[in-house]
Amino acid sequence: MVGYKAVDDYVTSGMKVGLGTGSTAAYAVERVGQKLASGELKDIICVPTSERTREQASSLNIPLCTLNEESALDVSIDGADDVDTDLCLVKGGGGALLREKMVEIVSTKFICIVDESKLSKGLGPAFALPVEITPFCHEHTRRIIEGLPSLAGVKAVLRYGNVANNKNDGDQIAVTDNGNYIVDLFFETAIKDAKQAAVDLKNTVGVVEHGIFQDMAHCVIVAGSDGVRVAGNDGEKPWW
Amino acid sequence: MVGYKAVDDYVTSGMKVGLGTGSTAAYAVERVGQKLASGELKDIICVPTSERTREQASSLNIPLCTLNEESALDVSIDGADDVDTDLCLVKGGGGALLREKMVEIVSTKFICIVDESKLSKGLGPAFALPVEITPFCHEHTRRIIEGLPSLAGVKAVLRYGNVANNKNDGDQIAVTDNGNYIVDLFFETAIKDAKQAAVDLKNTVGVVEHGIFQDMAHCVIVAGSDGVRVAGNDGEKPWW
Repeated sequence: MVGYKAVDDYVTSGMKVGLGTGSTAAYAVERVGQKLASGELKDIICVPTSERTREQASSLNIPLCTLNEESALDVSIDGADDVDTDLCLVKGGGGALLREKMVEIVSTKFICIVDESKLSKGLGPAFALPVEITPFCHEHTRRIIEGLPSLAGVKAVLRYGNVANNKNDGDQIAVTDNGNYIVDLFFETAIKDAKQAAVDLKNTVGVVEHGIFQDMAHCVIVAGSDGVRVAGNDGEKPWW
Repeated sequence: MVGYKAVDDYVTSGMKVGLGTGSTAAYAVERVGQKLASGELKDIICVPTSERTREQASSLNIPLCTLNEESALDVSIDGADDVDTDLCLVKGGGGALLREKMVEIVSTKFICIVDESKLSKGLGPAFALPVEITPFCHEHTRRIIEGLPSLAGVKAVLRYGNVANNKNDGDQIAVTDNGNYIVDLFFETAIKDAKQAAVDLKNTVGVVEHGIFQDMAHCVIVAGSDGVRVAGNDGEKPWW
């Protein structure tokens, strides 16, 4: 259980902790709740990255606040949709990438927890990269994104239906919690330079935020068939 | 009339033209209308940067479209709130910086038109720099902006009241056309490196867009007491 391990290894009493979203991160939230209840952890305050996580944490009596009260966190623990060998991540398939990045980028250590199915040699083909854009002239922005040289070959698709997945399961444009749209970037081959792609996307007028989390993960804790391994700081070089 | 001069010097038949917003830019719109009516200009299509400009252009029978139809423009003409000696601009006091930047950045030539009161040795003290941010955890984002090293000494103030000015003339948070908030950045001394400030602002999670228009103006046409002078391409080195 990588969620448990992340809490056991990185969360100590007195810390300010960012709580991720998703099925993997939910175990970390559960573990924080257990250790608070047992008295093993004290004086923790946590910032949830979604309403769903807020509800789970709240039900476990975990003290919560927002970034408005605490702009600097000691550690955040969250999953990812895709992890490359530079520990660049793709996150935000669930449409909450802005909130997740806002929390995780102000954490001294961001601990990423995944199962080995999320490991890839290069970002892109395994999971469509979500990009949050402003509604105004969204078709223009979509076209500009498709034309970025660092994203050569990309197909940018405006998300419809439920904003929390990229299945386009509806006929209305999906709207994020922030009132914006999402375009999902589909690649047939790996993005050559994910860090450059991140820079180019963020510098595009009309782009609010993108799902590449580069130079952010302190380490990635990976659950595999052979047990748990750690890549990055406090672990090994990426082996996949 | 720098608005007339900009049209006379830079707009020819067949062009796709971005139309700016504000009292100075309104003369450029007027001139395009005159020249279309007289037959001197033909086959022009224009993209307005605001509803106000759309109305003016429409009343002059100027053919209009949006960036959704035309993602690349030949020329845009617009004013600015502050112009430094690198021809970096501050724009967006009126709260429409995102739409303006979206149009002007895809123009082969962006012609800036101002009167000499807008010229400054360094951006910042003459006009507060507007930054559009997402509503979520806006107080956190405001604080992060105040902490950016390239903005040392800045006071970041959330805009209240009418979104179209920075007078804070109301008790409700001002909301942009895109559903976002504005923070106005007040400086007592000039920003040391406006280009670095632009990079740092755009890279801040939660920032949608900022009012620094760097490396964008082809030239700046200046109305002064001694007549009209041009700085930049097709003109002189900045003299102020």
